[in-house]
Amino acid sequence: MKLAEMTWPQVTALSPDVPIVIPTAALEQHGHHLPLFTDSMLVGEVTRRAEAALADKIVLTPVMWLGNSAHHLDFAGTMSAGPRTYIDLVGDMVENFLRHGFRRIVIINGHGGNNVPGQHALFEVRQRHRDEDDLLLLFAPYWALGTRPNELDASIQQQAMQHACEWETSMMLALAPHLVGDYKNTQVVDPRHACEPAMRAWTTKDRSAAGHVGDPSAATAVKGETLLAAFATDAINLLQRVVNWSGRGWN
Amino acid sequence: MKLAEMTWPQVTALSPDVPIVIPTAALEQHGHHLPLFTDSMLVGEVTRRAEAALADKIVLTPVMWLGNSAHHLDFAGTMSAGPRTYIDLVGDMVENFLRHGFRRIVIINGHGGNNVPGQHALFEVRQRHRDEDDLLLLFAPYWALGTRPNELDASIQQQAMQHACEWETSMMLALAPHLVGDYKNTQVVDPRHACEPAMRAWTTKDRSAAGHVGDPSAATAVKGETLLAAFATDAINLLQRVVNWSGRGWN
Amino acid sequence: MKLAEMTWPQVTALSPDVPIVIPTAALEQHGHHLPLFTDSMLVGEVTRRAEAALADKIVLTPVMWLGNSAHHLDFAGTMSAGPRTYIDLVGDMVENFLRHGFRRIVIINGHGGNNVPGQHALFEVRQRHRDEDDLLLLFAPYWALGTRPNELDASIQQQAMQHACEWETSMMLALAPHLVGDYKNTQVVDPRHACEPAMRAWTTKDRSAAGHVGDPSAATAVKGETLLAAFATDAINLLQRVVNWSGRGWN
Amino acid sequence: MKLAEMTWPQVTALSPDVPIVIPTAALEQHGHHLPLFTDSMLVGEVTRRAEAALADKIVLTPVMWLGNSAHHLDFAGTMSAGPRTYIDLVGDMVENFLRHGFRRIVIINGHGGNNVPGQHALFEVRQRHRDEDDLLLLFAPYWALGTRPNELDASIQQQAMQHACEWETSMMLALAPHLVGDYKNTQVVDPRHACEPAMRAWTTKDRSAAGHVGDPSAATAVKGETLLAAFATDAINLLQRVVNWSGRGWN
Amino acid sequence: MKLAEMTWPQVTALSPDVPIVIPTAALEQHGHHLPLFTDSMLVGEVTRRAEAALADKIVLTPVMWLGNSAHHLDFAGTMSAGPRTYIDLVGDMVENFLRHGFRRIVIINGHGGNNVPGQHALFEVRQRHRDEDDLLLLFAPYWALGTRPNELDASIQQQAMQHACEWETSMMLALAPHLVGDYKNTQVVDPRHACEPAMRAWTTKDRSAAGHVGDPSAATAVKGETLLAAFATDAINLLQRVVNWSGRGWN
Amino acid sequence: MKLAEMTWPQVTALSPDVPIVIPTAALEQHGHHLPLFTDSMLVGEVTRRAEAALADKIVLTPVMWLGNSAHHLDFAGTMSAGPRTYIDLVGDMVENFLRHGFRRIVIINGHGGNNVPGQHALFEVRQRHRDEDDLLLLFAPYWALGTRPNELDASIQQQAMQHACEWETSMMLALAPHLVGDYKNTQVVDPRHACEPAMRAWTTKDRSAAGHVGDPSAATAVKGETLLAAFATDAINLLQRVVNWSGRGWN
Repeated sequence: MKLAEMTWPQVTALSPDVPIVIPTAALEQHGHHLPLFTDSMLVGEVTRRAEAALADKIVLTPVMWLGNSAHHLDFAGTMSAGPRTYIDLVGDMVENFLRHGFRRIVIINGHGGNNVPGQHALFEVRQRHRDEDDLLLLFAPYWALGTRPNELDASIQQQAMQHACEWETSMMLALAPHLVGDYKNTQVVDPRHACEPAMRAWTTKDRSAAGHVGDPSAATAVKGETLLAAFATDAINLLQRVVNWSGRGWN
Repeated sequence: MKLAEMTWPQVTALSPDVPIVIPTAALEQHGHHLPLFTDSMLVGEVTRRAEAALADKIVLTPVMWLGNSAHHLDFAGTMSAGPRTYIDLVGDMVENFLRHGFRRIVIINGHGGNNVPGQHALFEVRQRHRDEDDLLLLFAPYWALGTRPNELDASIQQQAMQHACEWETSMMLALAPHLVGDYKNTQVVDPRHACEPAMRAWTTKDRSAAGHVGDPSAATAVKGETLLAAFATDAINLLQRVVNWSGRGWN
Repeated sequence: MKLAEMTWPQVTALSPDVPIVIPTAALEQHGHHLPLFTDSMLVGEVTRRAEAALADKIVLTPVMWLGNSAHHLDFAGTMSAGPRTYIDLVGDMVENFLRHGFRRIVIINGHGGNNVPGQHALFEVRQRHRDEDDLLLLFAPYWALGTRPNELDASIQQQAMQHACEWETSMMLALAPHLVGDYKNTQVVDPRHACEPAMRAWTTKDRSAAGHVGDPSAATAVKGETLLAAFATDAINLLQRVVNWSGRGWN
Repeated sequence: MKLAEMTWPQVTALSPDVPIVIPTAALEQHGHHLPLFTDSMLVGEVTRRAEAALADKIVLTPVMWLGNSAHHLDFAGTMSAGPRTYIDLVGDMVENFLRHGFRRIVIINGHGGNNVPGQHALFEVRQRHRDEDDLLLLFAPYWALGTRPNELDASIQQQAMQHACEWETSMMLALAPHLVGDYKNTQVVDPRHACEPAMRAWTTKDRSAAGHVGDPSAATAVKGETLLAAFATDAINLLQRVVNWSGRGWN
Repeated sequence: MKLAEMTWPQVTALSPDVPIVIPTAALEQHGHHLPLFTDSMLVGEVTRRAEAALADKIVLTPVMWLGNSAHHLDFAGTMSAGPRTYIDLVGDMVENFLRHGFRRIVIINGHGGNNVPGQHALFEVRQRHRDEDDLLLLFAPYWALGTRPNELDASIQQQAMQHACEWETSMMLALAPHLVGDYKNTQVVDPRHACEPAMRAWTTKDRSAAGHVGDPSAATAVKGETLLAAFATDAINLLQRVVNWSGRGWN
Repeated sequence: MKLAEMTWPQVTALSPDVPIVIPTAALEQHGHHLPLFTDSMLVGEVTRRAEAALADKIVLTPVMWLGNSAHHLDFAGTMSAGPRTYIDLVGDMVENFLRHGFRRIVIINGHGGNNVPGQHALFEVRQRHRDEDDLLLLFAPYWALGTRPNELDASIQQQAMQHACEWETSMMLALAPHLVGDYKNTQVVDPRHACEPAMRAWTTKDRSAAGHVGDPSAATAVKGETLLAAFATDAINLLQRVVNWSGRGWN
């Protein structure tokens, strides 16, 4: 079910156990070859497929396309909520549904910069409602829910999500090829840094003059559809487990 | 130009005098007969027409569909940023474009609850940049830019925007009739209160058990197209004046 | 009744239905010819007359003379709460009286810069107390409560409140002429801007080098008394309606 | 000089070395016998006398009558800024004058509850302007500037300021006897607690059912004038030292 | 009892009347001759002795060594919570123990810069729990609990705590002489300022180029042990009174 | 070098390229068998060894023992900064050292609940200093820097850090056996949940009535020393890489 198209009496009529799915993404630079809305389009497609598959088992909100992207702000066009605003924003959206009586809220995230503040927002909400043991608050980056893409197609080189990379470029070639620019003549930008696996705070311009990280030139539309299908399947499986959840406790 | 579809080098190449247009709206209850996304769909349509007419003279961002709707939260499905989060959110979006060098930012608003915090956000931004005398920061509710609908069609009864009312229901009948429920059998909800013209702080449930304010039953698709066309024309005229602005000072 | 002169047992003895009247104003530049305290003196006089007329029907607090005036801070002497501080300040004052059990709180405002943050503060208070359907929280700029001054005296040129203008200068001539400087040799400053009716965020120095907006030279003490009397009558009528309010619901 | 009566060009013309004097007070319960505005009236009188004595050597702002009085909120009529709002409020007022170029800001405080947050506000301002070594930011409770009242009149029993006590009641008898209720039949409330000299966080209702602390029945108007005169002299002496200050450094 | 070494079931088993003792201090510059951790070491020693004496009558937390030291930040190595962070930090720690059911919380403070924000934090906590009349929240700077050191040893010159001064240097000589540098060749820095007793907001570099205030050269290890013993006795006496407290009300 | 024992002139004399190491931990419940200070003791030992090995190549601050532990607050004795306070706290500490001119700041974290807010704090700091391309801000949980313990000792069963688990209990047996209670008779608490790998927001009491997660009964002191040695080596290696860092850019 698409929340946007429902009326309030229809929402009132739902079971409180119906999972609410909130896709989060961003509008930020994606190098010279991908549009600013890439993350929002991709998570929009993944969750669109999930909603199509699960029909009336879940409620899907519109994509919250404004993300936590301050690290990209040196590249024109990038929009970003401030880091604290973003925590507030995610927390407010989750609280909205708790007020309406829902107990299972799943954020399907499509932008790496949202991972940390999005999880923090859920942490805060959970503690505020600490005595409600029937809450299931999940944060799920769509690209990290189980699929290992190169097990599906050995020609997929990349091992983990990067930025405006082989994976994202491939998916955009599959989804909206008219919005993809010259990705063939891009440089490979190595994602690694000298002090791994320690986590380093960064701004994009320190890592990549062009804005992308990884190797966009390896992208193909076929890989893209493989990735979209796999990520959508992961999301569907996760949401089905949410539907099946016992309703109490941790396991 | 649609920001969502641009790359960052394309945005960098623009003149700093190009107006940035940010549509703001909401996802909140619209009575028994209209979908939660009504405000976002309507301002989306108004600004879509404006962008189509003005082409490369303006940059249009996606609709910020999360609004300030705490007063509607007693009706299920409503999503709302907290009142302070909303001020932060609008202010952050405007600051994004100032950082990118743009000087003319226009918020086209499609939700009444955004009027006060949206204006406050612009006030704060303006003071933080107080010595930049080339800034034009505008807040423009699309329904209050000049058009008097009943001068265009005397059968339009309503004098000002209400909520899920003759105007909004008409526009939804024109734009997405499949999402409009039974608006014929709705009660008239008088918008006036005992202490007008003083401004009264309210929650929706004090005013309307069904959620709408005004008379939805007076709606027609023909009125809807008249309204959409008039509001789009108002927006186009406003934005053309922004394009024509001298670039400095008040007048 | 004047709150300042009461003891706490006297306040405890009041009916919770007695309206609490909080005058809000500012201490900000008023051009070369009017003192910084103009707004506070004027709303003080309007509410003084209202309290005199309504006697024990209302409780009047002292004038909160610190306002939201960041847009005037380029002119020396101006004092201003920060924009967020002002929202907090107004909200805190209203919460004080809700805690004491009062249900009808009326802000009579005497400074344009307070309109937006003052309304936002009331909005926030209202939502925090969303289930109390017996609250009447009003925000009332004293110059916009019904009176059309030029219907009372056709020689009054100005149509709406401006700043250190014909209206304010006239009222100060009536109230405290010894504090009025040379208003005859002032320039007319047109309040309009290029993108009306869109609301534009501003700082005063962009609009007026002298600080005033409008035509102070048209002021007379006679006009001033006409205005004060009319605005006081408006305030009295509003407060009488608050006294008469049914005690529940919207109408 | 009274800031309220000045115009902005007059303030612009002042030396940046002129001390700005901001009286801070409160509107809070003062037992059964004193009005809510007691603190504001008393610091108003002390600073009125100082301004009369020092004439054009200082600038006096209006009394900021809203204080930090959350501990009195169980007594009806008390108004209070929230504890954080109060820090913001004081800090904002001081910043206003730093922006206008003044370097010597003196808060003359008339309410005990303001001492801690008022000092904290000044601390924050000082650190924000840490490299300006010509700032003199002072916080001065008027009753603690040197005078030992019982050295002036041995019949004055009280050793330090309490609340609605011998001192405050005496001063009100001298200043506004028509606002003083039956102070003769009040109980003595001992200010001491079991763990002195450790500072204990308190709410008034834990200490005094009537609201006062100390012995109001010992008050006389003669004592009141003695106290007012002595406290005004202290304030004048302090401000004269501020005028005489070297302009740099600590000593 | 040392909280650090306890398990949660052991804490659960305690009486809610057991006092919780939280030592607060700082890590900030202490001139050329004392280490940055001086305040934390000293309050650590004072409370260590108190815990040793009172055994299972109190619970002692670790020293919160991060303090409010923004005024020392011009001297390298100084660490400081921001002024608001510090209020939050202290308030959060106190709230932790209220949540666990304890009613008597004593902050033994070892750093002057904590006095104001620490007291403000306790004020805020007290008001949030305003209806709990069994709370005893104390803020106690260890050097101001009764002892007058020069009554114990007439060779102690200093009358009140200063910074990296005779007192602190003496105590460090007694406690950790290997960490004390050349204190003999230090200049006397007069703590007084021109506008005493008004409280002046300061940064250290305005007062002392070396960082200390007072006369370190007067320090001896013998004085240091005298001071430590006296301050520990004061703390023990205070905590014994807390143990003995009636459990309700002010006295 | 231990910051606590240094004077400010010694810190001033350091190269700005010296890494600053801030250990972060917590004081929170660790089941029935481990003390509240477990995390602080363990990260204290790991960083103590690192400082001993690296001597004057790094500066080590004291352990910030207050962590983000709201999820443990249902267990008595747990202390926690509020979730936002913790972000402020970490950010403030890092800003302290940037102000002092240092460029390489490494947080060695010893408490899982700090991971998300600690990373967020570093993100915020990095963006505030976005144009300083010589900053190296690292967040490093000590247990996730490379070592795979069961490759060192196949009898170590656990694969990743849990809470009061085989690993932590073992290390405490090695470090402070007198503080370890009966860990043999503990139940195994499975860390997994139904919706993995999605991240679920949790409170401890939903997962474990006793407070631990994992299998403490598998602990031995020998395993503990193996773990401590390995984690210390990881920390030393990381810090050596920080020392060797080129000083600019990402790689």
